[in-house]
Parts: sequence; C-alpha cells; structure tokens
Amino acid sequence: MAVYTEVSDEELEVFVGEYDIGNVMSCKGIAEGVENSNYLLQTTTGNYILTLYEKRVSPKDLPFFIELMEHLAHQGLACPTPLAGRDGRSLRELCGRPAAIISFLQGLWPRRVTAAHCASLGRAMADMHQKGLSFAQSRENSLGLPSWRPLFTQEAHRADDLKPGLSKFITEEISEIERIWPTSLPKGIIHADLFPDNVFFIGNNVSGIIDFYFACTDFLAYDIAICLNAWCFEADSSFNVTKARLMLQGYCQARPISAQELDALPILARGAAMRFLLTRLYDWLNTPPGALVKRKDPLEYERKLRFHSGITGPAAYGFDQALMSGGAS
Amino acid sequence: MAVYTEVSDEELEVFVGEYDIGNVMSCKGIAEGVENSNYLLQTTTGNYILTLYEKRVSPKDLPFFIELMEHLAHQGLACPTPLAGRDGRSLRELCGRPAAIISFLQGLWPRRVTAAHCASLGRAMADMHQKGLSFAQSRENSLGLPSWRPLFTQEAHRADDLKPGLSKFITEEISEIERIWPTSLPKGIIHADLFPDNVFFIGNNVSGIIDFYFACTDFLAYDIAICLNAWCFEADSSFNVTKARLMLQGYCQARPISAQELDALPILARGAAMRFLLTRLYDWLNTPPGALVKRKDPLEYERKLRFHSGITGPAAYGFDQALMSGGAS
Repeated sequence: MAVYTEVSDEELEVFVGEYDIGNVMSCKGIAEGVENSNYLLQTTTGNYILTLYEKRVSPKDLPFFIELMEHLAHQGLACPTPLAGRDGRSLRELCGRPAAIISFLQGLWPRRVTAAHCASLGRAMADMHQKGLSFAQSRENSLGLPSWRPLFTQEAHRADDLKPGLSKFITEEISEIERIWPTSLPKGIIHADLFPDNVFFIGNNVSGIIDFYFACTDFLAYDIAICLNAWCFEADSSFNVTKARLMLQGYCQARPISAQELDALPILARGAAMRFLLTRLYDWLNTPPGALVKRKDPLEYERKLRFHSGITGPAAYGFDQALMSGGAS
Repeated sequence: MAVYTEVSDEELEVFVGEYDIGNVMSCKGIAEGVENSNYLLQTTTGNYILTLYEKRVSPKDLPFFIELMEHLAHQGLACPTPLAGRDGRSLRELCGRPAAIISFLQGLWPRRVTAAHCASLGRAMADMHQKGLSFAQSRENSLGLPSWRPLFTQEAHRADDLKPGLSKFITEEISEIERIWPTSLPKGIIHADLFPDNVFFIGNNVSGIIDFYFACTDFLAYDIAICLNAWCFEADSSFNVTKARLMLQGYCQARPISAQELDALPILARGAAMRFLLTRLYDWLNTPPGALVKRKDPLEYERKLRFHSGITGPAAYGFDQALMSGGAS
C-alpha cells in the first residue's frame, strides 16, 4: 500500500504540462509497492505511471535507476521507460520530491505462482542480464554481503523477542556465509528484488519487469538465488523443485549458467534468504504501530534460510549440469 | 487506502469472463476509499472499476445502491454505472464477497477545494436530488439522528481520553439537537457522504459523483448541511462564507431551497457535524494499531459542531432569501 504524498490538482497540472502527453483526465493512487508513491495517470494520450520517490530511495542513485531503465527499454526489454519532458529531462521535482512519469506496462503480477510462470521468469531474467551487460554504469549493492553484519548488529538484542534463539542462529549463519561466499563469479546488472509483484504476466508469459530501485552490480547468479527464494517456495515453506528446475532451464535458454555458478547457487540462495530475513526483521522491529504498510513476516525467510543451509548441493534445486543446454524439459 | 481482498489472476479472469468487456490487460488496487476494495481494471475494451464490497456495506443494502446508481446514470447524472454481465446481473460474487464492475469516471477529486469547486458542487448536488425523486425505492438513514445517542453511549466512557470534557459536550449537544431537529422538510434520496474525495472535477466543473454506499432517504437539505461541513471549512477550522454562498447559490440554480429549508440549515449542519464526530470517534477508539487505514481526527468535527451551535441563523453561511433565485452572484 503506498501513497505517501498527496499531489494537488494544481501541482499535477503544472507537472504534466512539462511533457507532451496531453491533459490530465484522472490520477489515482495505486495500492502497490512500499517504497514510493505511485499514481496511475490518465491523460488524453493514454495511461502512464507517476512515481514520487520517497525517502527509501537515495536521490543520488536516481539517475542510475532512470538511465538503467532507459537502457534496458532501448535494448528491447519490456520494462518501464521514463518519459522525457520538453526540456529533455526525465527526472524532475513534484511536491518537494524527485518524480518521474514512466510508461505503463500491461499485465498482472501473479498472486498464485505456477511452474509455467517460473519458466517464463527464468527466460526474462536471463534476457535482462544479457541486456544489462552493455550498460556502462555500475552501482554497488548496498544490501549485499558486507551490509548484513552491521544491519543485524543494531537489531540483535531484540531478535529473540520474535523467536527465542533467532539471534544466535543469525549470528552463526552470517559467519558461515561470510566464510564460504564466492569471490569470482560473472558480474553484471541485477534487479535484486525480482519478487512476483515486480513481474507482470499476460497468460503464462512475462509481459514486463518493474521496480528497478534495488538494481545494482553483483553476481548475476545472485539474482537467480533471490528468485529461488521468492518464487519456488510454497505457502507452507516447502520447496517446489519443479518450479526451480523450470526457472533454471528457462534461464539457460537465454544465458547459459556456468558450472561454477551452479555450484554456488546454494550459498548464494542462503545469502539471499539472509538479506530478506534481515531487512524484514529490521522493518518488523522498526515499523511504528499504525503505519500504512503491512509488515512482512521475517520468519518466512528464516525457514527458507534453513532449507538452503541444509541441502548438500544444487541438485536439491532439481537441476544439474546435464540440463544446462536449456533445451530439455 | 483500501485493498482488503487480493484477487488472484485465475479468479479475476473467470469473473471478467461473465461480461462482454474483452480480456483483462491490467488490474491495480486503488489506494482510495476506506469501505471497499477497489481495483482499476483495464481490459481490451477500456477502463473499469472493480469493487469488492467489504464488511461495512451490508449485503442486503447492495441492490438498493446498485439500482440507485443505474437509475441516476440512466437519468443522465455523471455517476458510476454498474455493468450487467451476460446473464443480465450486475451484482455477483468474487473471492467470497459481493462484487461489481462499474464504469470508470474521468476527473480528479480536489485536494484543495476552491470556491469555484463549491459552486459547481452545489449545482451537481441539486441535480442529483432532482434526479433521485423518480427513484421508487427508499432506504432509512442508518446513521441518522436516532442512531447518534446509542452510537455515543458505547464510547462515552472513553471520549474524555481524547479530550477532557468531550463526553459532557457531546451528551448535551445530542439532547439539544434531538429537541430542535426539524420534522417536516422535503425528503428524497441523499448521497449522505458527499466529501471532496467522492466528487470528481475536470477544471472547475463536476465531472462525476461516486461512492453511493451511504445513500438513503432523508431531508434533502441534510445533504447540503453535510457539504457545508465537508467543503466550506478551511484547514484551520475557519468557515469560508464565500464557498458556502457559492455552493448554496449553485444549488438553487437546479433546485430552489425553501425558506423552511434555509432556516433549518444551522441545526442540520450541527447534526451533520455530530454524525461525523461520532463515527470518527468510534473509528478512532476502535481502529487497532497497525490497521491499514489512516484514522481521521474526530476533533475536527467537534470544532465544526461548535461553529454551527454558535451561529444565530443561516445568514452566517453567507446566504439569505434574497439570493435564492440562484441568479445573483
């Protein structure tokens, strides 16, 4: 649920007047996304998304995100394209916040993920990785491995309020993950938040990827590891190997996974589970009562983390090197 | 902020398949309205609103609301029109809740109300009152005068937690309002919740009225009294007589206000302020921390109530019988 900033009609008309997109006919706050204020803007020329960037997105990172979307869209990826105003600028200010108008993507994000969704997601993710290779800029992953220990240290004394023993478990896991984290896998631009609500489908096929506001430079396989967590577990925390296999096979159709990357998937997935466990824990402990966001359960990611810690190799994801051609099904 | 029910893609496609409106292209929850779940639905034929009726709307009242909107739209009022499915029904079920697809209205609700908005609102409200006269059904106002004392009794012991003396003030005001409440003014269908977020404008002109889920049969002038409260006070609680005068003059252009109605406005406005004070107080005291709705300040309506109690007659609204022709400005 996200509309943090109310835009007045006068301010909106002045803002939209900077673009060649006709007159405002309607503008409704969208109850999705938790980082920014998003409006569905209808003008006499069509539908657009108006985004006001709220405090969680650092203004200094905005040109990177905007230019990345422009680059990927230009390469043919179905992702939001920032619109340029008459002055050529796509990033300006509204209600004291950085703001942009971006293209509207059709499709629905899947409330219930199917194996067919996962196959298409894999292909789309690999395609995005390929198209990002020619993007000249880079951005450090501010929520990567080096951030986890300091992020946890602030909350460690309260973690056991959520579940006895949680603090000790996380501390030991962070140490182990730091010890065995890979150092030399292929890097590139990753989305870093490729959850179902950021991927639109028409039928079983990905029609668009949105919300690039965590995008950064990191191991490409780390994006896959995030998706193993976000797409392949069932509501009861059981792991669905069919979904994982189809996702990995789909991925290989657009970009081969190397043997090195495959071997690293369990540790990367363990790290990805830690990253979301820690940010959810932080939000859980720091969201004031009455805030207009639904807190997400951190312990969902504790269970996922335990799954990845407990497996003996990538075969647990239903995938092995024999399937890497991407052709088999 | 209102999306209480998440609709899955499969359920949505089956539901939309009951209508002749093409295929679903997008469906986004709208962060407006606090009573129901509303989605902006885009299909291959256009834009629609999908509403799921949540617990605050009684299922037995839904046919009244739906048929009222159909009647008013048929009479030419710019209001949402429920769409009939192939089976002729406009009210069906989705995710275990009553649900309907209604037409999409263009326009923006005014975040900052101007006097010009009030003039157009007055005309549109009177037009709605006229068009409602031929609607054959009636519905008691469940939040009318007889409900106020019992509604307050449940919360009386906690009212002083909000402001010392509030309980005594409300008790005395209810007694006085009951004593002098009018008994024989013209009745008809009123909207009963005509706040700025329920009225869309294009420029200074009303382009549509939405959210008829409090509509009922009551004194027509009570709707005017609600609007005096909802549209004519400034953020600092001062009363803007220019807005009130223009609203009343606008109203008279489509339906004359009788001398009796004019004389009753102060007591009706006092009652309307009491109704919103009481429901806001109830919500304030009964909304659990962490709920996904922003609680509205009850004391805003205590201040408005004191204004109406303190005036000596309708002249305080900047209006008198000489202006009733509706022509003067």
